[in-house]
Amino acid sequence: MRIALLGGTGDIGEGLALRWAFDTNHEVIIGSRDPDRARQKAEEYETELASRGVETTIHGFVNPMAADRADVVVASVPAEYVISTVDDVVDKLNDSILVSPAVGMERDQTGLHYTPPAAGSFTEAVAAVVSPRTPVVGAYHNLAADRMANLDADINLDVPIVGDDNDAKDTISRLTEGIDGLRPLDAGGIPNASEVESITPLLINLASNNPGLHDLGVKFQ
Amino acid sequence: MRIALLGGTGDIGEGLALRWAFDTNHEVIIGSRDPDRARQKAEEYETELASRGVETTIHGFVNPMAADRADVVVASVPAEYVISTVDDVVDKLNDSILVSPAVGMERDQTGLHYTPPAAGSFTEAVAAVVSPRTPVVGAYHNLAADRMANLDADINLDVPIVGDDNDAKDTISRLTEGIDGLRPLDAGGIPNASEVESITPLLINLASNNPGLHDLGVKFQ
Repeated sequence: MRIALLGGTGDIGEGLALRWAFDTNHEVIIGSRDPDRARQKAEEYETELASRGVETTIHGFVNPMAADRADVVVASVPAEYVISTVDDVVDKLNDSILVSPAVGMERDQTGLHYTPPAAGSFTEAVAAVVSPRTPVVGAYHNLAADRMANLDADINLDVPIVGDDNDAKDTISRLTEGIDGLRPLDAGGIPNASEVESITPLLINLASNNPGLHDLGVKFQ
Repeated sequence: MRIALLGGTGDIGEGLALRWAFDTNHEVIIGSRDPDRARQKAEEYETELASRGVETTIHGFVNPMAADRADVVVASVPAEYVISTVDDVVDKLNDSILVSPAVGMERDQTGLHYTPPAAGSFTEAVAAVVSPRTPVVGAYHNLAADRMANLDADINLDVPIVGDDNDAKDTISRLTEGIDGLRPLDAGGIPNASEVESITPLLINLASNNPGLHDLGVKFQ
């Protein structure tokens, strides 16, 4: 399967790119607004993987070209750029699965707070932008970027997945299972996205308030 | 320490009552709108504990009398009765710590959804009802009632705790640690309550959507 990571030069995309390339045989494509930056980061990931004995080719393209080539497109850009980034690639998506890991958050003196867009969640906002042909899945909201990007870091974490298209959700579940230490869980339809997204600011607050905890994820047990 | 569980005849209160009585030396008081019901359930809990070798006295009172006698008061009633229950005991609380485990949830055809009151969360709504002398702490939102009430069920779960009064939060942390298998975590101030409360409908959705999972709690790792 071909997976494009829009904004795959950033920290959220980096972890998914490295782990899919390291743990699976899926083809990883890095997207960026700047194609040179995409190619440069793709080469860095190849070098990192080669240093661990994995010889693989990772291509880098401008976001719409990356999306055009993929079966699964992950909008792994900061939340404030998700809608514009998806809008830029919307006519390249067709029936590819679009994955939204974005979470709206704002910090004040009491900590980080969940601030969803008017649609109720970023997953719902993204679903409102794409064609009805494009299945949207919400996933990977609750994974700490630095920990994912460090292949020496063991993970044993859950990934709640929301989506209204069960085939698309199954595909993303299988992709998730491909990464060692991740357990996909069906969190229901897209209207359930906000309860998944809102865990992310809590994880960051818990890490900042409790000594010894950092780069937290979640496990349901 | 004396802990009153308002609505301690119900399933949320039952688990906390049994586990505090079983695992600690704190004095547990059961509150109910109906004092006979409170005494009857208190006796049932005593019998359950005695069958496991723990001889202890659990008193039952009408809610305001239970609150009047306690250092810590847990409003362990269903969410729709939390505000009226707290309102009934508000002049008995003084500087006792009031704990809110309530979560607003509504079910539709897509699953269970987080539906906080206008205050932003039930913890904030409760804090708006009591005197400024009464410290309010949000805790125990994400514990499955049936699992807590079954003393044969092992637990290894986290309890995110929110509150604006650090001494009160420390007291509730220590009470939480007293229950085997619970780890208290500081989730920040009361404005952070909604991110804790909103996990509860997700836990229920995950249990209903994923075979083999039930009575879920959460662990941050």
